[in-house]
Amino acid sequence: MSLYPERTVVELKELRELTSDENGAQRVAWTDVWQRARKWFATKLVGLPVEHHYDAAGNNWVTLRGACEKALLIGGHLDSVPNGGWLDGSLNVLAGLEVLRRFASEFHGKPPLTIRLVDWADEEGARFGRSLLGSSAFAGTHTITADRVRKDRDGTTMEEALRRCGVHMDRFPEAEKERANAAAYLELHIEQGPVLEKLNLPLGVVLGTKGVERHAITFHGQEAHSGATPMKQRRDALAAAAKLALEIRSIAGKHEDAVCTMGSLKTFPGIVTAVVGQAEATLDQRDLDAQVLAQMYKEAQEASQRFAREENCTVEWSRIWSIEPIPFHPRLLDLCEQAVREVSGTSHRLPSGPLHDAAEVSRAGIPTVMMFAQSLRGISHNKIEDTREEHLEMSVAALDKLASKTADWVLRGN
Amino acid sequence: MSLYPERTVVELKELRELTSDENGAQRVAWTDVWQRARKWFATKLVGLPVEHHYDAAGNNWVTLRGACEKALLIGGHLDSVPNGGWLDGSLNVLAGLEVLRRFASEFHGKPPLTIRLVDWADEEGARFGRSLLGSSAFAGTHTITADRVRKDRDGTTMEEALRRCGVHMDRFPEAEKERANAAAYLELHIEQGPVLEKLNLPLGVVLGTKGVERHAITFHGQEAHSGATPMKQRRDALAAAAKLALEIRSIAGKHEDAVCTMGSLKTFPGIVTAVVGQAEATLDQRDLDAQVLAQMYKEAQEASQRFAREENCTVEWSRIWSIEPIPFHPRLLDLCEQAVREVSGTSHRLPSGPLHDAAEVSRAGIPTVMMFAQSLRGISHNKIEDTREEHLEMSVAALDKLASKTADWVLRGN
Repeated sequence: MSLYPERTVVELKELRELTSDENGAQRVAWTDVWQRARKWFATKLVGLPVEHHYDAAGNNWVTLRGACEKALLIGGHLDSVPNGGWLDGSLNVLAGLEVLRRFASEFHGKPPLTIRLVDWADEEGARFGRSLLGSSAFAGTHTITADRVRKDRDGTTMEEALRRCGVHMDRFPEAEKERANAAAYLELHIEQGPVLEKLNLPLGVVLGTKGVERHAITFHGQEAHSGATPMKQRRDALAAAAKLALEIRSIAGKHEDAVCTMGSLKTFPGIVTAVVGQAEATLDQRDLDAQVLAQMYKEAQEASQRFAREENCTVEWSRIWSIEPIPFHPRLLDLCEQAVREVSGTSHRLPSGPLHDAAEVSRAGIPTVMMFAQSLRGISHNKIEDTREEHLEMSVAALDKLASKTADWVLRGN
Repeated sequence: MSLYPERTVVELKELRELTSDENGAQRVAWTDVWQRARKWFATKLVGLPVEHHYDAAGNNWVTLRGACEKALLIGGHLDSVPNGGWLDGSLNVLAGLEVLRRFASEFHGKPPLTIRLVDWADEEGARFGRSLLGSSAFAGTHTITADRVRKDRDGTTMEEALRRCGVHMDRFPEAEKERANAAAYLELHIEQGPVLEKLNLPLGVVLGTKGVERHAITFHGQEAHSGATPMKQRRDALAAAAKLALEIRSIAGKHEDAVCTMGSLKTFPGIVTAVVGQAEATLDQRDLDAQVLAQMYKEAQEASQRFAREENCTVEWSRIWSIEPIPFHPRLLDLCEQAVREVSGTSHRLPSGPLHDAAEVSRAGIPTVMMFAQSLRGISHNKIEDTREEHLEMSVAALDKLASKTADWVLRGN
């Protein structure tokens, strides 16, 4: 046994030093800084008895071959959002590396089953607005036709940007070969929310990733002069949208853990002297229970129509995106709970609101579970993202225990 | 007696033909199209026994000298907003021209008092964001230092644009000389709101222009991940702003004719996956009663602070602009009511929400009143702005009666 969780913290700081500026982490996928992070990561593999390659979608695989072909996968992502934090994605990869080292050391280079560490390509989708890119190629749920023509702010297409990094989108389907022999998938991640901090718990067991209904909602009223139009004769699109912004909180409040968010509201013409003629809102609804999600979606639609009528406006909805809830594997949830309990003395199960590569892996039919480490202030995608070092070390230890338990479970024939 | 209200309608159509495109009127002040409108107007003066000049602020004066130096002023503006309507400002000028012709004709070029028609420069402020420019120079309330450096969208300063039209801002104060002998000021205007149409009245007597409190209000909460942040742990700046957007309607609703408008609401970061960390709203409050206006301002401030507390946010206010209510002259209100009643059989008094040059003239201490003609659908500043021709003709006739009554009142020594 030779696990050194403190080494993970040191390596996380090295990576931060190498790939951050005064505004935070800048490891945006398909950029030079991201490639610098991956090269630095490769140097950490020197001397380890592993095979290292990039698959057809740019996912970064490190394989420690075991006595048995069955593979335990551990994943994360080195890419970040612009001005991001030091832990989101990286903790997963570097904790996984430490677990890989422990297996290599304990079993003298030949563990009883194969251990594979994967650094997924472009989890964040920060540059082209398409998240979970590499893991969706792995899972066979990629959407090449729609994605290849996406452009970044400078007008570069996704296809061109990937080609510069040696990745040809036509070959994405070849990444599915990596699924061969995959018996289980584990992912550690910072929570990115305030729940564990509020409960004063270092670690949590993730029940699954919530399903998402994401819509654009536009209220149409009548632009009118703010001075000349009596209150009772207005068709104020902002008033209808404001009612919905408040109502979605009641809709979510009926369900434990459900969330509804109006993240953007735009007013047109949007000038101080005109009643708002058009209000464009976004709505993001999430829950782990598909029925709850469907109910919330229905209630929000009905409420929007009621408010439109009340304000003498009309309303239209347009789906931006949706995904079904993805519950993790029941047996792996139990093993994760045992591991968390052994390290921290207690355990708590919670859903993940954010999506993760684990969702794509689970969709591919591979038994999957995630573990959360507490986030301070619940803040992520920001340079102030942070977790206590003590908790980071506990998370590495718990992931290691989970990996051992999962390996045993796989070897017993699931 | 030789008043031809139908001639006014014909001339309005001529002007529309000359200065509009498929998007509406394009007579933006200090542009070629505006100057074309003014040249066209000058041709209408040929043969009339009048003196015509532009003052130091670019206001366009036509003077019919009378037996007495005391002057009755009738005003309007030929400038429009971009993509504007055919009546806003122009009806005033062309109806005034018809009244001037009638005085010239009836009194054989020498009425008992002086009649002056003024086409104010840049009422709309469309190009540089500074409305009532010419009338404020006349009133001595101009703000040259702040205004001369204003820039249009192309970066041209106001000072430069005016110089190209022969107007030197340093000389603005000379426009105050036009106030000499001014005994009363009359202005006809389309309502630009839906009140008279709703009451099925062609004409209205304008009580004054409402005072305005105009503020920027910013709520500060905490940006947070829409998936990871439980509803109860949010500091949602949009929720606080939405409550205010609804509450201002109750605040206005306590007072007849008062209005409160949130015309713009901006959300930051304004993305579908983040709870709103900052919401920037504008508030425009108007009433003819200064005490009501002050009360509404206070109530909105208190409400915003209450909502900020409820949502665990903070709020800050910043005044954009304000002006006191400007009630028109009581005796002229009576005369206006008589004139409206004689032409249309009934009368209605209403405040003006929009500001007008009449407000500046009144601030200069000159007895002032305005008359409104019904607007169809209450729409203005738009190419679909319209008024029934029958109502346009009635408005010319009523303005003419008001001018005669006012002339008598002036000659009787006010």
